[in-house]
Amino acid sequence: MLDETGSPAPVDMGSWVCPMPLRDSPNIVMGHGGGGAMSGELIEHLFLPAFGSAAEAGFGDSAVVSLGGARLAFTTDSFVVKPMEFPGGSIGELAVNGTVNDLAMSGARPMVLSTAFILEEGTALADIARIAAAMGTAALGAEVKLVTGDTKVVDAGHGDGVYVNTAGIGLIDDGVDIRPQRARPGDVVVVSGEIGLHGVAVLSCREGLEFGTTVCSDTAPLHGLVAAMLATGADVHVLRDPTRGGVAATLNEIAGVAKVGVSLDERKIPVSSQVRDACGLLGLDPLYVANEGKLVAFVAQEDADKVLAAMREHPLGGRAEAIGVCVDEHPGMVVARTALGGNRVVDLPAGEQLPRIC
Amino acid sequence: MLDETGSPAPVDMGSWVCPMPLRDSPNIVMGHGGGGAMSGELIEHLFLPAFGSAAEAGFGDSAVVSLGGARLAFTTDSFVVKPMEFPGGSIGELAVNGTVNDLAMSGARPMVLSTAFILEEGTALADIARIAAAMGTAALGAEVKLVTGDTKVVDAGHGDGVYVNTAGIGLIDDGVDIRPQRARPGDVVVVSGEIGLHGVAVLSCREGLEFGTTVCSDTAPLHGLVAAMLATGADVHVLRDPTRGGVAATLNEIAGVAKVGVSLDERKIPVSSQVRDACGLLGLDPLYVANEGKLVAFVAQEDADKVLAAMREHPLGGRAEAIGVCVDEHPGMVVARTALGGNRVVDLPAGEQLPRIC
Repeated sequence: MLDETGSPAPVDMGSWVCPMPLRDSPNIVMGHGGGGAMSGELIEHLFLPAFGSAAEAGFGDSAVVSLGGARLAFTTDSFVVKPMEFPGGSIGELAVNGTVNDLAMSGARPMVLSTAFILEEGTALADIARIAAAMGTAALGAEVKLVTGDTKVVDAGHGDGVYVNTAGIGLIDDGVDIRPQRARPGDVVVVSGEIGLHGVAVLSCREGLEFGTTVCSDTAPLHGLVAAMLATGADVHVLRDPTRGGVAATLNEIAGVAKVGVSLDERKIPVSSQVRDACGLLGLDPLYVANEGKLVAFVAQEDADKVLAAMREHPLGGRAEAIGVCVDEHPGMVVARTALGGNRVVDLPAGEQLPRIC
Repeated sequence: MLDETGSPAPVDMGSWVCPMPLRDSPNIVMGHGGGGAMSGELIEHLFLPAFGSAAEAGFGDSAVVSLGGARLAFTTDSFVVKPMEFPGGSIGELAVNGTVNDLAMSGARPMVLSTAFILEEGTALADIARIAAAMGTAALGAEVKLVTGDTKVVDAGHGDGVYVNTAGIGLIDDGVDIRPQRARPGDVVVVSGEIGLHGVAVLSCREGLEFGTTVCSDTAPLHGLVAAMLATGADVHVLRDPTRGGVAATLNEIAGVAKVGVSLDERKIPVSSQVRDACGLLGLDPLYVANEGKLVAFVAQEDADKVLAAMREHPLGGRAEAIGVCVDEHPGMVVARTALGGNRVVDLPAGEQLPRIC
């Protein structure tokens, strides 16, 4: 795409018209950051056309690239959770575990992380030190090294204490091929434990929303659980950590990419009574609430039992359950059989139930 | 660093006391993001102790890691430049070229970039589309692919339009070993062209500071210039792009790491008359003003002429000059011989002359 002078031809955005439904607002709204349909539209209708041929096909949460003979996973995430500290963790643990988990979900062994801070003028150094210490501890737990970093400072009133970006590189072993496109009818859909903990924990300490729960965030590095699953030799087709938008957004995304249906049995989905009560109080559906230490797997039917057994042996998979199956019917859609025996469509959320959850 | 339960022992920050001179303020000030002494202290006295053994020795701007047999450079940068668009470019070009250049400065061929956006609620989608298009065009020019990304949205009043993080991976060929530690007495210090353009361009459109200059930012990808220098077979010891803190900060950093002195001839330093005039008006020293498309090289004395010749053949090195030498005397210090024949110490700036320049 170089012109005769050797300069790249500019990507022509002159005719760019914000397509529906983004066009409803000419501006960014909170929902664009929620990990639901609006986030997807921003990527599909704004970022990808603007990036043009510079964007690699398959541009997404995590990339698989071959460099110098090595098969690498590469991912990035910025963290803007509010408040910065919450029951069970802080933005520091999230920033390390979130990126470690994105790498692990492509079957990679997480190796190195970068850390980039956007600090707001006036933030207490002691707060930053505490968050950085949480990152150090989380990195030790996730067996990754922090190898490079950057620090910027923005004027008071143009940040929110600390925003952290972590990018990460992982190594993918030969023969490992885990991606949403591999979901196929017959696969058993597995979740690694009780859902909704992170979102409820963050919400529980939001200003004006304190409701006295003792729910703690589930933030945790999932690379060890993934290693235990793969060590069984099972054919694991898809792995995904259901963060923003919860299990509902994750399953919709997989169903859409792989053009399969997902049929859930709602009674099988592990939800703690505390999360169920908090969600009832706040009018939230646990399927849409963020997790930071859970994974969803699509596993070949014949291997499901041994994968579940391996997960339950692992400290982070004790409450693992098969919650549904992948089906030929209703491709791109997730349908849940309710406790009362009816069926309901589990839609992709448009924006978010809970902004700035990670 | 795992305890008997297999959990990582938390990094103990209980006894952390903010050391001098950070202790002057218990809070973050703008100078912590200026790329000078205060930025260095934040890393040395806060981040590294907090990260503990999770931080790889040599934690810095750019890391060299060996993964799966490949020798990789890995770097990250967040961009918070204000305003987002300025003469000669925007935050979009900076975000791509800045990370490309960090990779190129370790002698790597830049390969893939991640892009992570922190968008402020209420920002015009059209502004974001324009910035993203600039990133696409810059990536084509720098011959890198944008392979993975992330988008977060923060509430109005907690951002500044768009903050962008790019992390990048490059491949380092066998035999290439370029790093500040390799600076040695006798090396010729080379700069690739006129300095101070980026800082003056950004400053020229800051609210209240318009001074009607036509200076444009020099933002550009330097990987091609580096390739041309290395193709001569010359022994290039150090490469660095003098961004925040300008040539002064970069030379001080190299002198400090390599424990050598740097002796500059001020008359040799290329500065355009426009930059000289603008700096005079504003009371700035061009040596401290940021560049985004220049490099400083330390080259073995016997190879300096051929490196300079190769640089001058390249479109981005036409005004390359030898501006000084690396010396045994005054290790860790940069001394400039002035136009009047005197000598002055070129100190590491404490904070910044110009905050939020990139």
